[in-house]
Amino acid sequence: MDISQRIENALTNVLQKAKLKPAPPKLAAALNYSIFPGGARVRPQLSLSVSIACGDDDPLLSDAVAVSIELMHCASLIHDDLPCFDNAELRRGKPSVHRAFDEPIAVLSGDALIIMAFEVLANASKNNPYRLNELITCLSRSSGMPFGICSGQGWESEPKINLSAYHMLKTGSLFIAATQMGAIAAGEESEPWIELGARIGEAFQVADDVRDYIETSEVSGKPAGQDLNNNRPNAVKELGFNGAVEKLEDILGGAISSIPSCEGEAQLCEIVRIQADKLKPIKIKKVEI
Amino acid sequence: MDISQRIENALTNVLQKAKLKPAPPKLAAALNYSIFPGGARVRPQLSLSVSIACGDDDPLLSDAVAVSIELMHCASLIHDDLPCFDNAELRRGKPSVHRAFDEPIAVLSGDALIIMAFEVLANASKNNPYRLNELITCLSRSSGMPFGICSGQGWESEPKINLSAYHMLKTGSLFIAATQMGAIAAGEESEPWIELGARIGEAFQVADDVRDYIETSEVSGKPAGQDLNNNRPNAVKELGFNGAVEKLEDILGGAISSIPSCEGEAQLCEIVRIQADKLKPIKIKKVEI
Repeated sequence: MDISQRIENALTNVLQKAKLKPAPPKLAAALNYSIFPGGARVRPQLSLSVSIACGDDDPLLSDAVAVSIELMHCASLIHDDLPCFDNAELRRGKPSVHRAFDEPIAVLSGDALIIMAFEVLANASKNNPYRLNELITCLSRSSGMPFGICSGQGWESEPKINLSAYHMLKTGSLFIAATQMGAIAAGEESEPWIELGARIGEAFQVADDVRDYIETSEVSGKPAGQDLNNNRPNAVKELGFNGAVEKLEDILGGAISSIPSCEGEAQLCEIVRIQADKLKPIKIKKVEI
Repeated sequence: MDISQRIENALTNVLQKAKLKPAPPKLAAALNYSIFPGGARVRPQLSLSVSIACGDDDPLLSDAVAVSIELMHCASLIHDDLPCFDNAELRRGKPSVHRAFDEPIAVLSGDALIIMAFEVLANASKNNPYRLNELITCLSRSSGMPFGICSGQGWESEPKINLSAYHMLKTGSLFIAATQMGAIAAGEESEPWIELGARIGEAFQVADDVRDYIETSEVSGKPAGQDLNNNRPNAVKELGFNGAVEKLEDILGGAISSIPSCEGEAQLCEIVRIQADKLKPIKIKKVEI
């Protein structure tokens, strides 16, 4: 089974359980709506690729880590889209959760997915209970306060903001968790995997800023220039368009060379190269050709 | 150190960590605001009392469980108070988090506290790593979908609702988690503790409905009759005032007789008796005297 199929199957299994009685039907439907069909699933692909590169000795736990990372990511998108934040109409080319359902359901969906992200780790760690502690620590650190997604998002409410710290917290932290947790799931040390996650996370954010600047809503599935309109910190605004594109190339090169020596190193390099290529906005790739 | 002091100290320690750099100051302040000063701390008092009754062989883990339960409870209050749910002005006699700060900060505070509730369990389980799995499972089950607080809250968006299932999910589940997790923290089986948690949770909800019906906002710190105004399921509405008061007495009696045989059984009975007495609305107690 390929990586994408493993991720979709594992997500489907977890979401099935959330629908069981006594689940309220609307909230159960909203959870499903927010997870399927997915986006690029970049973060779970990354974590599972790292688990595989590290030997994948507990496939259920590797799958659970991928699911956990994706659930936390989707939760952050749902809350980020709420009227009090971005007030986004669209997400992944369809109405955002609070538009398709309503605000109460969107708030609860985010909460339920955050909780589920921890639950799946506990459910899958029966064979290797000693790995659970580090997994929970890593996930909570990367998503909460003061080092995770919540902290990054919280900086949007402050009068002064440091662009790179903001990006590291809001986007980088979960990419770092993806590579670290991928390694932990396979019984490996997590520390050597921090740099790969950090670099891919940084690249992803810069690519998003560049895409946000040049693409229309038809291509990206969300209104163009939204971050700029909302007066958010943005790499294009800070470095100019050419500067941001140059930075993106530098970071992606560094990501590949940071991969630690491991069983499946060559294959992982190739996967990261493919993922990196997907990150580049379409118009930049056309210019390269 | 008495139980209340242990809980406040443990909460203070955890909240200190959430303020560390690079925490955004407003969000850090909101977390503190939402936890201190506390309400009756009924749930953490219950969990810690059970841990002590079971021997309290890992006090740091017992404290962490109490903190975890309280953080999850406070998170649910913050989100419950949001304009899209109760739109509550007051909580614990002061402005609700979204009124004192704003909606983005309130959404993020709830998210951060949910995450922190899991994080403290991992941080405190180094000495007894085998207890972590069951603690995470219990906390996530009691707070998420389909068996926890989110599920209960989600039923408010449905056209038809079962009153007792709703109360069990929205209020009972976290009380059950409190007694179960209190036992797990001390290395005991959790199953015999379900009934105590369920009965106290049920009593608490009925007491809240009765209090909501008879008291003014000066006494309870929140606008009177709010649940009725919002057309929520309510025990007084279902059974009448006298019926609800009778039910409350029955449940509290049953709670005490359900306490499993354990080292500190007598002391725990006394604590539950005192807590049960606190649950009774002031006007009912006056009538009894």
